[in-house]
Amino acid sequence: MSILVVGSVALDSIETPFGHTEKTLGGSATYFSLSARFFAPVNLVAVVGEDFPKKYTEMLVKRNVDIKGLETAAGETFSWKGRYGYDLNNAETVETRLNVFENFSPKIPTEYKRSDIVFLANIDPDLQSYVLNQVKRPRLIACDTMNFWIENKRKTLIDLLGKIDIFLLNEAEARQLVGENNLLKAGKEILKLGPKKVVIKKGEHGVLLFSRVSVFSAPAYLLESVYDPTGAGDSFAGGLIGYIRKSGRFTSDSEIRKGIVYGTVMASHAVEDFSVKKLSSISYSDVQRRYHEYRRLTRF
Amino acid sequence: MSILVVGSVALDSIETPFGHTEKTLGGSATYFSLSARFFAPVNLVAVVGEDFPKKYTEMLVKRNVDIKGLETAAGETFSWKGRYGYDLNNAETVETRLNVFENFSPKIPTEYKRSDIVFLANIDPDLQSYVLNQVKRPRLIACDTMNFWIENKRKTLIDLLGKIDIFLLNEAEARQLVGENNLLKAGKEILKLGPKKVVIKKGEHGVLLFSRVSVFSAPAYLLESVYDPTGAGDSFAGGLIGYIRKSGRFTSDSEIRKGIVYGTVMASHAVEDFSVKKLSSISYSDVQRRYHEYRRLTRF
Repeated sequence: MSILVVGSVALDSIETPFGHTEKTLGGSATYFSLSARFFAPVNLVAVVGEDFPKKYTEMLVKRNVDIKGLETAAGETFSWKGRYGYDLNNAETVETRLNVFENFSPKIPTEYKRSDIVFLANIDPDLQSYVLNQVKRPRLIACDTMNFWIENKRKTLIDLLGKIDIFLLNEAEARQLVGENNLLKAGKEILKLGPKKVVIKKGEHGVLLFSRVSVFSAPAYLLESVYDPTGAGDSFAGGLIGYIRKSGRFTSDSEIRKGIVYGTVMASHAVEDFSVKKLSSISYSDVQRRYHEYRRLTRF
Repeated sequence: MSILVVGSVALDSIETPFGHTEKTLGGSATYFSLSARFFAPVNLVAVVGEDFPKKYTEMLVKRNVDIKGLETAAGETFSWKGRYGYDLNNAETVETRLNVFENFSPKIPTEYKRSDIVFLANIDPDLQSYVLNQVKRPRLIACDTMNFWIENKRKTLIDLLGKIDIFLLNEAEARQLVGENNLLKAGKEILKLGPKKVVIKKGEHGVLLFSRVSVFSAPAYLLESVYDPTGAGDSFAGGLIGYIRKSGRFTSDSEIRKGIVYGTVMASHAVEDFSVKKLSSISYSDVQRRYHEYRRLTRF
């Protein structure tokens, strides 16, 4: 009963006012996996180049991430170079090198094909569809996207949304997708495009969850220091999808709300250090402790 | 067992992308009173000019606001002209005419001097102190301020804070007051200046409440249409202080959290129409209904 994630594994170089990193582990599938692993076994499908450090694959295996689906291709690993100012909400991309990711065609290993949850991290919607064609009736399909696909692969993306149970996107993408500035209206409009649930991520301002029956608003966990916001969204998705898998109640509104809170907790851990440093070193009791702190923070 | 509020009563001219108004009822004490009246009797102290329309004083009286403390002085009423763009978070002041407000020296009627709650709306901290010297041991003192006083009357303001139970300010003011960008740190720093509780208002992103024992984070109520954000902060304060007065439990953390939610509910009503139009026309059942909707919006 595993979660299948398809996305990127990258080497990130990041600069923030608090420090910088060079070619450290990043990528949507990486953050997702290191977050979801606290709740359920994770099967990862992605591609890296020959330069990908062995210590990273070893670390992932040690953290209970199945990497049979992590292909090594000739060439260099996808790399992203980004910069954040004091306003950590917006990343400035300095350089993107797709490298082996350019010709990525996700092949789902036979053992993965019966995964009951599939998370399609932010990749080309054509590839996301291609993945869905290879798996056997998953019980829940979740999907992320980005502004580039909304602009350039709109039709494919919208066709895909009819098959999606949980669609995640950030607030700017939500506004862009339906041309509506008000997020309450935008969320409802996106539901009409097909997904059963829509999650709008607002960074430090929290998350909105839209379903046919209700809206849920969850503020972010409060932190005194944010060092590196990279991967917050995918860590969030890992907590959300991981918790839903663990609870086993795939359509329960109250369980999905709890999942949103676990996602919030995982994102808050992820941003407290560079790269996946904190996400890969915390324990499940750290996750639980913060979940209970979040309850105290929001209960009335 | 009333609430005493001292602040401004104004004639506002407001322009937003959704319409405009000319010389309609505004002012911090007005919004506060029309919000708090749902929970407890309100005694208003402010000054207006001879031009102040009788229909407004009549409306206030009908809404259960005691206006014995509303002085009429020779000259014109304080008027504010403001403009909002599509980003309704920031008002641009086109013109401020202090008029009779310039020489406002709040005189507290004898019947008001035993009010057990005092709300010092955003006026000169010298006047706020002057008010406190006239009242007899209130059980709770709450106070608002603005960037101008933080900059120009810093010492008076900080001296005052030692007497304050609940100090309200918006996020930019909080950052400015203690020179700290992170709101969690800023809230804790402000507590050190003396107030027992600090409320940081974040507009559409909700509210943070800091006390010695806990932090509470409340997202805003979600609205499809915001027409005029003027007075949102004072309407919030009215709901918060009003509810605390009604509950009678002036120091209970859980009651103050509920007050924060009632404040959020009142602010959400206030911004759904121009001036005090909606705030003056809703009923208590509208308030209660939205309180329960907010619970559904945030519960997990």
